[in-house]
Amino acid sequence: MTTALALNQISAADAARALVAGKLTSEALVAACLERIKQREDAVRAWAFIDPELALKQARQCDREAPKSRLHGIPVGVKDVIDTCDMPTEYGSPIYRGHQPAYDAACVAQVREAGGVILGKTVSTEFATRHPNKTRNPHNLGHTPGGSSSGSAAAVADCMVPIAFGTQTSSSTIRPAAFCGVIGYKPTFNLINRAGLKFLSESLDTLGTLTRTIEDAALMVEVLAGLPPTSFATVAALKPRIGFCRTPYWDQADAASHANLERAAQMLAAAGAAVSEVELTGEFSKLAATQITVSAYEFFRALTHERTRFPQLISPSLTARIAAGGKVTRTQYEEGLALAERCRKRIADTFRGYDVLLAPSAPGEAPSGLDGTGEPIFGLMWTLLLLPCLTLPCGRGPTGLPLGVQVIGRHGGDAALFVAAEWVQRALG
Amino acid sequence: MTTALALNQISAADAARALVAGKLTSEALVAACLERIKQREDAVRAWAFIDPELALKQARQCDREAPKSRLHGIPVGVKDVIDTCDMPTEYGSPIYRGHQPAYDAACVAQVREAGGVILGKTVSTEFATRHPNKTRNPHNLGHTPGGSSSGSAAAVADCMVPIAFGTQTSSSTIRPAAFCGVIGYKPTFNLINRAGLKFLSESLDTLGTLTRTIEDAALMVEVLAGLPPTSFATVAALKPRIGFCRTPYWDQADAASHANLERAAQMLAAAGAAVSEVELTGEFSKLAATQITVSAYEFFRALTHERTRFPQLISPSLTARIAAGGKVTRTQYEEGLALAERCRKRIADTFRGYDVLLAPSAPGEAPSGLDGTGEPIFGLMWTLLLLPCLTLPCGRGPTGLPLGVQVIGRHGGDAALFVAAEWVQRALG
Repeated sequence: MTTALALNQISAADAARALVAGKLTSEALVAACLERIKQREDAVRAWAFIDPELALKQARQCDREAPKSRLHGIPVGVKDVIDTCDMPTEYGSPIYRGHQPAYDAACVAQVREAGGVILGKTVSTEFATRHPNKTRNPHNLGHTPGGSSSGSAAAVADCMVPIAFGTQTSSSTIRPAAFCGVIGYKPTFNLINRAGLKFLSESLDTLGTLTRTIEDAALMVEVLAGLPPTSFATVAALKPRIGFCRTPYWDQADAASHANLERAAQMLAAAGAAVSEVELTGEFSKLAATQITVSAYEFFRALTHERTRFPQLISPSLTARIAAGGKVTRTQYEEGLALAERCRKRIADTFRGYDVLLAPSAPGEAPSGLDGTGEPIFGLMWTLLLLPCLTLPCGRGPTGLPLGVQVIGRHGGDAALFVAAEWVQRALG
Repeated sequence: MTTALALNQISAADAARALVAGKLTSEALVAACLERIKQREDAVRAWAFIDPELALKQARQCDREAPKSRLHGIPVGVKDVIDTCDMPTEYGSPIYRGHQPAYDAACVAQVREAGGVILGKTVSTEFATRHPNKTRNPHNLGHTPGGSSSGSAAAVADCMVPIAFGTQTSSSTIRPAAFCGVIGYKPTFNLINRAGLKFLSESLDTLGTLTRTIEDAALMVEVLAGLPPTSFATVAALKPRIGFCRTPYWDQADAASHANLERAAQMLAAAGAAVSEVELTGEFSKLAATQITVSAYEFFRALTHERTRFPQLISPSLTARIAAGGKVTRTQYEEGLALAERCRKRIADTFRGYDVLLAPSAPGEAPSGLDGTGEPIFGLMWTLLLLPCLTLPCGRGPTGLPLGVQVIGRHGGDAALFVAAEWVQRALG
């Protein structure tokens, strides 16, 4: 199975099977990833920190041990807002240049415990907000990779690593994944432990993954959260009930995205899914604005150390966002949380009629230029609803860059989402 | 108003009023606290780190500035599981001896922004769990101060500082406050921002305060969360509806605590409250066991770095607790969260008939010996229900140590809890 692809291109699950079968070593896999990085990093700029020897040392240690899990020997990229005890963690900010945490975040330590290799730190935007960092879209270096999980999306898309951690507070996993043409997965809130994550908005910050296969997204969260392995055996026989959801923000997507998603819905119906339109009305239309209010209130507090001591080292756009957060009253914040809670109940009712919802991943393909990271609008509502979301590459935009479609599952229904999304991906070809 | 009390004994709110009136300097207040610490610290052992010059320097700076908030110039103790950029933070564990974080936790930075003085770090038990540290009960040095906010409770009780941060995952603010005879306040979950707190159980960990007055507890949370100032003007006219709640764990409290709480209920009724018994039956009786399951699942993950790299530096009791957490399945964890959610809805209904509930704070007075920190049983259910709780000193146990009564408010009803608790405190004399 690994013959057709170079080692750096194979999925984590395929690599793990080859490792267990004795057909592959972690060292060879890691070396292939490092070679790809060597070739491409000057162009893509996906990594905040990489030490080839440190990665190879971990790989050789893995090769001396019996497999500890299905992640054994697999290289993993870690977004640079997640602490690592042996690699600097700069949170995408000049305030933390060279900062070395004392301990690994829970998710990093769990990967190590499972036998995984921490390959390096992937570039984050400033504190996982919208202000861009140095990463470029590997499909077209003149375009943004999206953010805030810029480096993770670009590194996975460019086959530098099979899996990388992302985080999402607004649309920071889904958007860059869509822009870079990979699988972005934001789990149900509270599936991956957040100890050691630099908090931005603790009610929303969610650890997730960037991968090239849905199976790999499932693999990672199964190991970390102790979920039973997802069986994809039922995929072929599935007839999913799919709610085609334009969302209240449909007019913020461009014509290419409209056409792409409509075509996808038609293809899914043609492949046997029960597809019908779901209109989210009333308070649902306030979810994006509410996400902005709730997160800003929390930004203002979470970044107090930075905004009071290093205001000159914070970008103008984040400074403005923080200032807005300082004006949100506790009452407004609590009203926002209450609205979100009401909508969570309503969306749970909606899901009685559907296995998954289908929605835009982003307003369009990755914008040109590196002075922005694109608009998060199509992530905001789902993040605030705490639902599991997965973006799949599907179609191309006007300049040939990847487009994505977003598949959203019910709260806590991550395993069912993986299976339904796999069905969707196969139906979309 | 400060004439009857030594400077180190006055409340934060009284000190703040004197500061604003020009009758007191922060330097004098901080110096008085430092002098008390100098006299008593050898006996009480409440502090993990204190640097008198660093504290005085902050105080002098405050005295040069116009008051920034009602916390201006007020010394605050910080539990040593909360990061500080200029003081070591050891999380109560030998693993982190001398550890110096790079940045302040949000709550610490907020106190500084508000003009408060970070006096020093107060002793925590090991990672805010039950394994004791060095602190002694200031009322009787042969007894535990309780845990995990051991140093904060003892320091405030011994008039070394008017306010200190505590945290609560099980009963880590309420229990030590009750044992030390001070006001312990665990806010509604998500009132004080947790960025920079060493996580143990992210679904439950709650920042709170230890103070000697209810007004001071209110003051702190108002400044940090942006709540409007609580008005205590209505207290005298209040006729609170009080649910006397023995809880499903009543038989785990001793006879002295039973008698003390029953007497308190009678006194409150005599003072004009509408007091009636509230029995929490059915699934409520599973809340304590569920809290243990949910928190253990999270302990296992949050402490992965420590348990995999430094197992020999973790106490046997925490090692056992972590191991138990490793055996909790995701399904059991999610069932626990679902049970908690059902009980949160039920308790919201219960609160339609009551302004506050009255319940035990601890099974009895502080146990003798320093090899334990007492039982958290009377905190578990309220923490899992995310409700605001306040313990008030009330009565004495068999050996003359303080007893407490716990007053519980509705979710988000912290301001109403302060007012009702103030009424309760006055009625109890």
